Amino acid sequence: MGAAAESIPVAVVGASGYSGAEAIAIILAHPAFVLSGVFGSNRRAGEPLDELHPRFRGQRELRVHATDVESVVASGARAVVLATPHEASNELAGPLLDRDLVVLDISAAFRLASDRAHAAAYGFDRVPSVVERAVYGSPELHRAALEAADLVACPGCYPTSVLVPTRPLVEAGLLDDSHPIIADCISGTSGAGRAASVTTLVSEVSVQAYKVGAHRHEPEMIEHIGHDVMFTPHLGCFDRGICSTLHAALAPGADSASVRRALEERYASEPFVRVVPEGATPAIRDVVRTNFCDIGVHVDERRHRVILTSCLDNLVKGASGQAVQCMNIRFGLEETAGLGPHARGQAVRV
Amino acid sequence: MGAAAESIPVAVVGASGYSGAEAIAIILAHPAFVLSGVFGSNRRAGEPLDELHPRFRGQRELRVHATDVESVVASGARAVVLATPHEASNELAGPLLDRDLVVLDISAAFRLASDRAHAAAYGFDRVPSVVERAVYGSPELHRAALEAADLVACPGCYPTSVLVPTRPLVEAGLLDDSHPIIADCISGTSGAGRAASVTTLVSEVSVQAYKVGAHRHEPEMIEHIGHDVMFTPHLGCFDRGICSTLHAALAPGADSASVRRALEERYASEPFVRVVPEGATPAIRDVVRTNFCDIGVHVDERRHRVILTSCLDNLVKGASGQAVQCMNIRFGLEETAGLGPHARGQAVRV
Amino acid sequence: MGAAAESIPVAVVGASGYSGAEAIAIILAHPAFVLSGVFGSNRRAGEPLDELHPRFRGQRELRVHATDVESVVASGARAVVLATPHEASNELAGPLLDRDLVVLDISAAFRLASDRAHAAAYGFDRVPSVVERAVYGSPELHRAALEAADLVACPGCYPTSVLVPTRPLVEAGLLDDSHPIIADCISGTSGAGRAASVTTLVSEVSVQAYKVGAHRHEPEMIEHIGHDVMFTPHLGCFDRGICSTLHAALAPGADSASVRRALEERYASEPFVRVVPEGATPAIRDVVRTNFCDIGVHVDERRHRVILTSCLDNLVKGASGQAVQCMNIRFGLEETAGLGPHARGQAVRV
Amino acid sequence: MGAAAESIPVAVVGASGYSGAEAIAIILAHPAFVLSGVFGSNRRAGEPLDELHPRFRGQRELRVHATDVESVVASGARAVVLATPHEASNELAGPLLDRDLVVLDISAAFRLASDRAHAAAYGFDRVPSVVERAVYGSPELHRAALEAADLVACPGCYPTSVLVPTRPLVEAGLLDDSHPIIADCISGTSGAGRAASVTTLVSEVSVQAYKVGAHRHEPEMIEHIGHDVMFTPHLGCFDRGICSTLHAALAPGADSASVRRALEERYASEPFVRVVPEGATPAIRDVVRTNFCDIGVHVDERRHRVILTSCLDNLVKGASGQAVQCMNIRFGLEETAGLGPHARGQAVRV
Repeated sequence: MGAAAESIPVAVVGASGYSGAEAIAIILAHPAFVLSGVFGSNRRAGEPLDELHPRFRGQRELRVHATDVESVVASGARAVVLATPHEASNELAGPLLDRDLVVLDISAAFRLASDRAHAAAYGFDRVPSVVERAVYGSPELHRAALEAADLVACPGCYPTSVLVPTRPLVEAGLLDDSHPIIADCISGTSGAGRAASVTTLVSEVSVQAYKVGAHRHEPEMIEHIGHDVMFTPHLGCFDRGICSTLHAALAPGADSASVRRALEERYASEPFVRVVPEGATPAIRDVVRTNFCDIGVHVDERRHRVILTSCLDNLVKGASGQAVQCMNIRFGLEETAGLGPHARGQAVRV
Repeated sequence: MGAAAESIPVAVVGASGYSGAEAIAIILAHPAFVLSGVFGSNRRAGEPLDELHPRFRGQRELRVHATDVESVVASGARAVVLATPHEASNELAGPLLDRDLVVLDISAAFRLASDRAHAAAYGFDRVPSVVERAVYGSPELHRAALEAADLVACPGCYPTSVLVPTRPLVEAGLLDDSHPIIADCISGTSGAGRAASVTTLVSEVSVQAYKVGAHRHEPEMIEHIGHDVMFTPHLGCFDRGICSTLHAALAPGADSASVRRALEERYASEPFVRVVPEGATPAIRDVVRTNFCDIGVHVDERRHRVILTSCLDNLVKGASGQAVQCMNIRFGLEETAGLGPHARGQAVRV
Repeated sequence: MGAAAESIPVAVVGASGYSGAEAIAIILAHPAFVLSGVFGSNRRAGEPLDELHPRFRGQRELRVHATDVESVVASGARAVVLATPHEASNELAGPLLDRDLVVLDISAAFRLASDRAHAAAYGFDRVPSVVERAVYGSPELHRAALEAADLVACPGCYPTSVLVPTRPLVEAGLLDDSHPIIADCISGTSGAGRAASVTTLVSEVSVQAYKVGAHRHEPEMIEHIGHDVMFTPHLGCFDRGICSTLHAALAPGADSASVRRALEERYASEPFVRVVPEGATPAIRDVVRTNFCDIGVHVDERRHRVILTSCLDNLVKGASGQAVQCMNIRFGLEETAGLGPHARGQAVRV
Repeated sequence: MGAAAESIPVAVVGASGYSGAEAIAIILAHPAFVLSGVFGSNRRAGEPLDELHPRFRGQRELRVHATDVESVVASGARAVVLATPHEASNELAGPLLDRDLVVLDISAAFRLASDRAHAAAYGFDRVPSVVERAVYGSPELHRAALEAADLVACPGCYPTSVLVPTRPLVEAGLLDDSHPIIADCISGTSGAGRAASVTTLVSEVSVQAYKVGAHRHEPEMIEHIGHDVMFTPHLGCFDRGICSTLHAALAPGADSASVRRALEERYASEPFVRVVPEGATPAIRDVVRTNFCDIGVHVDERRHRVILTSCLDNLVKGASGQAVQCMNIRFGLEETAGLGPHARGQAVRV
């Protein structure tokens, strides 16, 4: 639809997984980006994309290429979305940056600043010169830095759902930092990826906590929120979406009005964050397949504590949608381009 | 995106239901149509749209108006989508046509040509002068007529899923008309509408046949396919989508090759119909929230019978998406405008 | 199976709802109890039970009777399960006790000791002489009192899931009572009851918190646990089961070993409570349609806090199964009778 | 509960799958059978059963043994349920029969009489002397033969759902055998077994037809119904249950009354088959976790065709429940023992 002259070619690496497919779908419908190529494992090389993902039937000309840096460069891409395992992202990012591509990494390879924390959580070492270049891809927190970023470390799905509601309260000094934020989060099974598995079969899946006290998203939350977080993930019996319930003790002087005001003001002009009205709560259904993160706020003044709830789609705002939002920022496009009807400013005559 | 000068204002009546909401969502994201207003029952008049449908939060300026012809006209609409009960559509369509609005009716009010058949199925009489103006809104069958239609009777969700796979075979004389087409179809619960109910509660719903031998979509199928159909609807334990399995006896001389060819050729350039490859079957997951109708074909040459399977989203291709597709045709727009990435011709460089 | 002479007739009042049906099903399969009659609203009087609940087809001789005390008495019942609204239970319990029936009330009418707290939460006053006779029906806490109880106030579904894991830690002095227990609980939609509704339609339901800071089960938890609780209920997109995640600060000196030991020892001989091994977590799937409450334990020694998770079936251990367990105790039967294979002592030769 | 002297020891082989677990659960709760041992692959030998199936927690004394004939015999079993792959059943059945065990085989190894048909469908040859001894385990069709059977070939889940509704009509000569029965059946994912897989992940599964014209249950249906059947299986997005919709042309003279009467009379005293009333349809919800097969009947007299619908639980009536029903018959027990409240004769005083 946009004139060909303006199109920005983008490659997607990691085509076989759910976030890779979501990135492809968003770019296919994007007014300014155009797919330069889709890349996957050697084993799938040459296969039509719709054999991996039948939803792309009718775009059969799309074939999966084996992933190597030269092929990605040769596709003409100016940017590349890495929907690859952490280790693969670690290996690919440097060489791609060296060839002047903008890299949007959906893995956790570059999310933690500390190499020691990273190695402890993920079990491999990173190339220091690459890590330094990474900007954490949260538009709400780092918009200015993202305008010039060549390597974007897209936040994890759970961390996004915890970061967006709590960070403004930390910034405003409204939380008592002698107590951890308690984060009980439930995710759909697409967060577990697309590998053959017993755990996430329809006949096995159940609502339950998992990796209690041991999930690698906890250090990511703590680093980027700047407050201790006790994170307990839960698996739900549904496909997409995260619902997070967050508890924090308030700092002296904080109250219902100041907490709500901090969030509403902070997000008044953000296109993809919606603070729901007093008494309402966000629901996964209202954000699924959108780039929204919805936030509910309840302050218990007697106990001097706040309960925040948030919902987002783990594959969109929690992965590929947020990556495209960052890419829009980086290329100077409308931030909401290709990401559906945005929250405010929609031209309607009513 | 389109210049404001080109925007075509469209009203949606019946804002509180699922197909009304779907129509609103499609129009909000459409490059050429713009919402002139949303209309509902008197009881909801004045409410923000997002109180009815929280997914529209952030577009709070959208309010529901009480439905009357003058208000719809006053909104400046050039077209109106009626997502209203059959009787309401019957009453509204004539006066709206008289005021030169193009009417897209999602109800069943104008689908049957025969007044007697209509009255038998739906229990009320229609205004004859209005019925005459209705064109059945199946772009694959009636594209030319739709270009000039002022009243479009959008097909039912089940009939669309049966019509699209079978009509080309009837046209080509490949079916034996001494035997009925047997249509076993399963639908998500959104097809049952949004009224408070026990039957479609999470704790009640189950897979089961219903209204066996008595569903009002059977005469619609028979009329528009031009072949007898025995239709058995089933309720499924999911939200959206229809999967239909269709059995027919072949005419003498018909075989696997001629049946497949008839469908593939008929739909080769249709943007929203995909005939899946030999051996594959369509799945609801691959079409949900799209305007596609996917078709699978299996011919049993020994028994000289064909098994067709089809999947579509009952709220999109089965309702509001197809309505917008018709409206695109009627207003001379790109037929796929606002309906997501289309099947063919997507400009990709791969 | 038991000799007819030993059968104890039991009536179920409130036949049309989910916990009424569950009570009927358990009693139909019970070795010592026999249904004396099922009672419902006047409107359903005379209807076969299987018109209300088709799962009971083939027991067509069961008909619903209008609810009045004389009819219940006339059915020959020695005990009655009230699966009725709170107000109805409040009215029925006294007269039934006066006629020497043992009353098992599944409603919340008699759960709170304080009349003021009850009136604040439920909006009506109770008959004081009846309230005094109520024993809170938690076998794990009040087994001795239940042996002689004539009125059992069966615990709520959420409170059971919070009480069972936390009460032993409170009793053992292992929790720091200057901090509330934080209880994030998610329930299937059967907990919302069987009335026609939009909220729990398949096409509406979503994972989300609700009644944040305002659910009536919070005072029940606080009273029976003897510790402050901040309770946040969540609705899930499934039929049956509750998964609760509970956070508490530990008292000085408490550690992982003492917490786990307190729970394991407390429940070593309880037939329906299972403390899952270190590193495992309970899942709704493992307890659904059973009378089990499973508990997982994780102590974060660095933060000196404990995370408990629990799962149960809201209609069984959270309602009618626990009621029958209490009734077994009251009538001196094997406590596990009619409640499925129990946790320990099953005679197997392996 | 039964005196130890009367207990009949039964072994279950194939403990790790869904039908193996279901058989174990039924036997654990059975009044006359007692588990002699559970057997699985060498790899799992020695593991507590509750590591494979956490629902069995608290019966930790149950451990999985490696499967070999001597161990099964040494367990003291008088009967053995084989919930094993077809090939394993083929190898185990003969030696177990030689040691005088009664064998209930849930696999398809012995369902087809014709060796050629079996080899064509399953790709391996059987031991002829063993095949001869097999009785097809449909109590409704072969009760007398089952009383003396030493090898029971338990019917497939889909075939049971098609056989039970149609066989009485074939026997009564009410169907026109110049037309195939058309069987559109939808199954929960537990029918696909418990292996790690992508297809039946929560995030992949969808309603769709599969193996159209190619499922191995079609020859089983044809052989045991004695009528041609065109079988199209469908996968559903749920765990347990099958809903089958069956179409047949009527023989001359057959009508609504004769069809309904044939079914109602045939099943009047069957404990696990329920013909639902005119106008009603069976639902998976009403039979799940029971041994019932419910049947709905609709005759279209104008088209002279019948539409039958049936529902059952694929793991109970479609597998392990039916196996235990056969075992009850074989050992002269009450046919309904251990299989829940049965359809008729329940002693209730109402």
